[in-house]
Amino acid sequence: MKFVLAPDSFKESMTAKEVCESMEYGIRKVFPDADIVHVPMADGGEGTVQALVDATVGTIAEMMVTGPLGSQVQAVYGILGDGTTAVIEMASASGIQYVNKETKNPLITTTYGTGELIKECLDRGCKKIILGIGGSATNDGGSGMARALGALFLDEDGNEIPQGGGYLSQLSKIDITQMHPKLAECMIEIASDVTNVLCGKEGASAVFGPQKGATPEMVSTLDRNLEHYANIVRRDIGRDILCAAGGGAAGGLGAGLIAFTNCKMSKGIDIVIRYSNLKEKLQGADYCFTGEGQIDFQTKFGKTPYGVMKAAKEVDPDIKVVAVAGCLGKDIESLYEEGFTSIFGIIPTASDIETLLKTGKENIARTCESICRLIKDSAAGR
Amino acid sequence: MKFVLAPDSFKESMTAKEVCESMEYGIRKVFPDADIVHVPMADGGEGTVQALVDATVGTIAEMMVTGPLGSQVQAVYGILGDGTTAVIEMASASGIQYVNKETKNPLITTTYGTGELIKECLDRGCKKIILGIGGSATNDGGSGMARALGALFLDEDGNEIPQGGGYLSQLSKIDITQMHPKLAECMIEIASDVTNVLCGKEGASAVFGPQKGATPEMVSTLDRNLEHYANIVRRDIGRDILCAAGGGAAGGLGAGLIAFTNCKMSKGIDIVIRYSNLKEKLQGADYCFTGEGQIDFQTKFGKTPYGVMKAAKEVDPDIKVVAVAGCLGKDIESLYEEGFTSIFGIIPTASDIETLLKTGKENIARTCESICRLIKDSAAGR
Repeated sequence: MKFVLAPDSFKESMTAKEVCESMEYGIRKVFPDADIVHVPMADGGEGTVQALVDATVGTIAEMMVTGPLGSQVQAVYGILGDGTTAVIEMASASGIQYVNKETKNPLITTTYGTGELIKECLDRGCKKIILGIGGSATNDGGSGMARALGALFLDEDGNEIPQGGGYLSQLSKIDITQMHPKLAECMIEIASDVTNVLCGKEGASAVFGPQKGATPEMVSTLDRNLEHYANIVRRDIGRDILCAAGGGAAGGLGAGLIAFTNCKMSKGIDIVIRYSNLKEKLQGADYCFTGEGQIDFQTKFGKTPYGVMKAAKEVDPDIKVVAVAGCLGKDIESLYEEGFTSIFGIIPTASDIETLLKTGKENIARTCESICRLIKDSAAGR
Repeated sequence: MKFVLAPDSFKESMTAKEVCESMEYGIRKVFPDADIVHVPMADGGEGTVQALVDATVGTIAEMMVTGPLGSQVQAVYGILGDGTTAVIEMASASGIQYVNKETKNPLITTTYGTGELIKECLDRGCKKIILGIGGSATNDGGSGMARALGALFLDEDGNEIPQGGGYLSQLSKIDITQMHPKLAECMIEIASDVTNVLCGKEGASAVFGPQKGATPEMVSTLDRNLEHYANIVRRDIGRDILCAAGGGAAGGLGAGLIAFTNCKMSKGIDIVIRYSNLKEKLQGADYCFTGEGQIDFQTKFGKTPYGVMKAAKEVDPDIKVVAVAGCLGKDIESLYEEGFTSIFGIIPTASDIETLLKTGKENIARTCESICRLIKDSAAGR
C-alpha cells in the first residue's frame, strides 16, 4: 500500500509537515509496512515557505526588513532544495499582522520590505523566486517593493516622494536606471488567486482597501493615486498595469511586479504542486490523504485539498483521496461530486477552539487510524 | 450490502430510533439500494423503554405515579410488540431527576411509584416485565415498590410505618398476604449491571447513598436499617437478600425485587439484545453500525456499542462493526483490540455542547455518508 500525505498546514495548530507526521503515526498503527510519502503542501498563502522548504528539503533564512509602517521587522524566506529557487511570502515583510486597529493606514503602508527580501534573493544568485502575495497591509501598488530594488520615485522637482499609496499623487517620474542588475535575469512566479485589476470598482483600493483600514475617502484617494501611478508607469516603463488581471492583488503589488519585474502569475496551489513534485510522488499511490484546518464548499476555489485531489486524479483516477479537517463547514457534499472519496472531521468532543488547536496532532493521528482500519477491513471484504 | 443499525440513544440529543434514521439517511446517499435494518438499542439505562418499544413496534403508555418524594409525577412504560411483555425504567417513576440539591434525602425517598408501574402492567395481564433499575433517587430497599404491590410494612403495634429507608428501623413485621394476585405469575427481568450487595462497605447505602444526598451519618443509619429489613424479610418471607449479588442496585430495589417477586437479574445490554432480536437481524449483515453519545475505554464495561459488537461477532466474525460517537473519550484504541473495525467522532467544528446536542442528526448523517464513501471506494480496490 502506498499513501501520499499532502495536507496544508492547520493554521495556528500544525505546520503541513507536522500534519504529515501525525497522519503517518495513525496510518502505521494499521499498515506498519506501508510506503508513506510526505508532501507538505500550501496554497500560496500562509505556510507556503515552510511547506515548500519542507517538501524539497530546503532551508529557511531570516532577515530584518522594513515593515509596512517603516519600522524593522523580522521576516523569513526560503531557499528550496535545488539551491537556486527562493520562496517568499510578502506577508512576512509587509503583512497585515504588523498593523493593528490604531496603526492600520493604507495611505502610508509600504511593500518596501518585500522588495528587500527579493533583493536579498537576487544577491544570493537566485534565478527563480516564488512569491506568495496574500495577507498584505499595503495599498502602494508595489511602489515600495520597486524602490527597495533601486527604482526612484520622483516628484516634479526630482526629489523622492514619501512612501505609501497616499503619496503617489506627487509622482512625476519613475527612474529605473539604477535597478538591481540581476532583476532582469530572475523569473518571479507570483502565487495569487486574485484576478482583480488595479483600479476602479473591482480594483485593489475599493475591494481590499477597507480591510486594511481605508475609509471611503481614503479608497477614493488611493484609487485615483494608483491610476496616476499606472499612467506614469505606462509612459516611463512602457508597461500597461491598468488592465492586467491580478494587478490589484496585494494592494497593487501584482501591478508593481508586472511593471518592474520579469514575472508570471499562477494559482498558488498550482505552483506548490509543481515545485513539490507532488504528481511524481503520487505515481503508484493507492491513497492520497490531504486536509486543512477548515474544509467547506469554498475549498474548491483554489484551496490545497482540492488542488491535491485534482492532481491525484490526473495522475491516476483510481487514487482515492481522503481529506481530514479541523472544521467541516457548509456543504462538503459538493466536494464529493468533484472527486473526493471521503472527508472526516477530527474533533473528539465538545471543545473550545484553543483546546482543539493544542490537540491537533493526536486528533489527526486518531482519525487517520480510524480511516485506515476501515480501509483495511473494507478492502478485505467478507 | 446489508447494514444493521444498532445504536444507543445520544442522550439529550436523539433517541436510538432517531440515530438509526440519521444513519440510514447518510448510508443511502452512497448505497441507495442497500438492505438497512434498524435495531434501536439501549443498555438497560435511560432510553431502554423507547428503544425496545421502537425495536419491537410496541407502544408507550403514560401514567401518574407517586414520585420519590411522594408527590405525583408523570411516568411512562412500554408494551413490546408481542403485547405481553412490559418494559419499565424505574427512574421514570423514582428517578434522581425528581429531586434537587435542596430536596434530595434518601431517608425518605420511595420506590412506591415503581411498584405502581409494575402493578399497572400486572393489571394489563403482562407475563413478563423488563425492569431497568438505574438512576434511582431512593435507598428504601425496594420497600416502597413492595407496598404499592400490596405488602404491608408494620411496626410493633401493627401500624404501617412511614415510607423511606430512614424508617425501616421501625419495621417489625411484613405481611404479604394481600399482595397482587398476578405477581407470582409474572417474570421480572431486572436489567442491571450492578453487582453490589445490599449492606456493608460495598452495599447500596455506602456506595450509592452519597450521590443521592446521604451524609456519613445517613449512610450509617440507612445501612443499619437495610440490614434490619433483610432480617425481617428472611424471617417473614424466607428469602435471603443480604448476600445476593445485585441486591444493592438502585438503593436496594434489587434486594426488594428478590424478596417479593419472581425475578432474575441480567446485564441490561444482554436483555435488550435478546428482546430486540438483534442477533437474528444481524444474519447476513456486511456492516453493523452502532454508537452512543460517549465512547471511551469504559464502553467495554457493558455499554451498548460493546454489546452490539460482541453480538455481531458471535453471529459472524466477518461482520464489520463501525461505531460513531458524539464524544470520543480516553483510550478508544483499547476497543479496537476487542473487535471494532473503527470508531469515528461526528463533531464538525469547535462547538459548545448545547449546539452539538441540537445538530446531532445532521452530524450522524454526514459522518455515516463519509464512512460509506470510504467503504465503497476501498472495497472497489484499484
